[in-house]
Amino acid sequence: MRIAVDAMGGDNAPKAIVEGVMLAKKDFPEIEFLLYGKENEIKKYMTDDKNVTIIHTDEKINSDDEPVKAIRRKKTASMVLAAQAVKNGEADAIFSAGNTGALLAAGLFIVGRIKGIDRPGLMSTMPVIGKDAGFDMLDLGANADNKPEHLANYAVLGSFYAQKVRGINRPRVGLLNNGTEETKGSELTKKAFELLSQDPAIHFIGNVEARELLDGAADVVVTDGFTGNAVLKSIEGTALNLMALLKQSILDSGAKGKLGALLLKDALRKVKNEMDYAKHGGAVLFGLKAPVIKTHGATGPEAVAYTIKQIHTMLATDVVAQLVAHFEEMPTDKDETQS
Amino acid sequence: MRIAVDAMGGDNAPKAIVEGVMLAKKDFPEIEFLLYGKENEIKKYMTDDKNVTIIHTDEKINSDDEPVKAIRRKKTASMVLAAQAVKNGEADAIFSAGNTGALLAAGLFIVGRIKGIDRPGLMSTMPVIGKDAGFDMLDLGANADNKPEHLANYAVLGSFYAQKVRGINRPRVGLLNNGTEETKGSELTKKAFELLSQDPAIHFIGNVEARELLDGAADVVVTDGFTGNAVLKSIEGTALNLMALLKQSILDSGAKGKLGALLLKDALRKVKNEMDYAKHGGAVLFGLKAPVIKTHGATGPEAVAYTIKQIHTMLATDVVAQLVAHFEEMPTDKDETQS
Repeated sequence: MRIAVDAMGGDNAPKAIVEGVMLAKKDFPEIEFLLYGKENEIKKYMTDDKNVTIIHTDEKINSDDEPVKAIRRKKTASMVLAAQAVKNGEADAIFSAGNTGALLAAGLFIVGRIKGIDRPGLMSTMPVIGKDAGFDMLDLGANADNKPEHLANYAVLGSFYAQKVRGINRPRVGLLNNGTEETKGSELTKKAFELLSQDPAIHFIGNVEARELLDGAADVVVTDGFTGNAVLKSIEGTALNLMALLKQSILDSGAKGKLGALLLKDALRKVKNEMDYAKHGGAVLFGLKAPVIKTHGATGPEAVAYTIKQIHTMLATDVVAQLVAHFEEMPTDKDETQS
Repeated sequence: MRIAVDAMGGDNAPKAIVEGVMLAKKDFPEIEFLLYGKENEIKKYMTDDKNVTIIHTDEKINSDDEPVKAIRRKKTASMVLAAQAVKNGEADAIFSAGNTGALLAAGLFIVGRIKGIDRPGLMSTMPVIGKDAGFDMLDLGANADNKPEHLANYAVLGSFYAQKVRGINRPRVGLLNNGTEETKGSELTKKAFELLSQDPAIHFIGNVEARELLDGAADVVVTDGFTGNAVLKSIEGTALNLMALLKQSILDSGAKGKLGALLLKDALRKVKNEMDYAKHGGAVLFGLKAPVIKTHGATGPEAVAYTIKQIHTMLATDVVAQLVAHFEEMPTDKDETQS
């Protein structure tokens, strides 16, 4: 099990990345790490070099680089070399906390799509509030425009992930829509509803509304990348703003309020922890020939280690190979006409 | 100034509606109210009949009626009669807390569109967290599919509302998009960006992301009805879930936590108040020949009174007539070809 790590991606790189790798090594001695980046900087944070190979490169992709151009022109960037290692079979997965757009481009153009999946989707496991559970949602923004067939693919991708990686027996798939009734929706979601209803490979439970996502209305939620991106950012923005408002209201309420906050410390910490997306792992660009995983740029060593655990599960369960097999068995258009 | 009120719409009708009208009458003695519904039930909650006319009808539209069918078949429903009063010039605006879809249909098919506006949008003023401010967003779901030209109309509609009704001098218009860069977006938003950039009637500030809406990134936010609906419901769902989680965490933390909550009562109430959408008025189906306003079905008398204040401002500022004039002055396609 070999993971190619873009050691130079993210605001706290290479420190947070290398420290996260060191943490993960303790739990997963079977993983071999290939670290791409500046050797002397990486070495500073290494406490142990067993199963770690550094591939030195001076070049890296910056957070403000134009993604597709960066991938094409910076041929020796740490992220590009890591993606090529996956393509060449030298590594089984790639991890980066760097430029999201560039990683999406590297995934599509270097690692490559699974045959039968036109538009891989960006997927995250999001928290179900107040329960020790989550739901997988895609596409969160890898694509700006999607067709009904893409949403049908996402249902299969999400179901495989929820079942193999999260251990949910028969994942409930919901279609994000503007109402729960079957007749509701845009042209896109009405057609997607039909396709999802007919797919025996998934357990489709119908439409779900954005209001009920955090209640755990479904285990897998499929939507187009534009809407998914807007919903994810709305949830994040609302949570951040509410917590900031609560903090400010406490500060404004004087000594009495501060004492109250002290007494409520555990309760407030619990709320904050629930909304901590890092605990739910990184975002997967799913539908590619190998796991391509991204975490927040501002991520710390623990979140890096958690994401490596997630990649470990993806590799141990061989979820990608099973997806490849599933889509190979799918009838092509030609077969459908004949049957 | 005459407002047609669907007294039978909403979970708490006619009680909350009639009590709200009674409250509003104190502040606005110049408004004449036409109340549509069951006379003896309405009379129960009336404390004063000055400037109030009851138009009795036994029929009403239920929350689970199929909107368009209900409007067409229930010809004497309270909502239908109220809409017809507006159409016939007997009233200047219509208010309902009933079936949203039916009110949208009544607005489109009975009250009618302003010439030049293909697809009226559902608009609400949403809170900017931590500031005494808000932003107008549309379309929140009147349409499931929109064209770039509709979004350009929404920018004008929202700007007129923000300026005339909310008193913002030069409202900043943002286009909801999946990134702030000019090149970002779906086919729809890229074309909408072009149209918005070229419209001298608005102050377009470019793309805004869902994450920054509650920070007050723009005074007017335009989007298609599918995305707007999903974003609105994501914000509501996240806020409700977080407040419920906070409450549960406090309850779970025993006597210490309860004392803490007591000390923090003012701070917690402030947070709750900020997220109280009722304080920001009802949702307007905007782009019609008269104000058509909806509040939440579960609304109480105060929220009804607040929404009537909002309608009063819309009528006092004559914002709809100004919109009609604006769109009449717009060059038609033919004029554009000649110029």
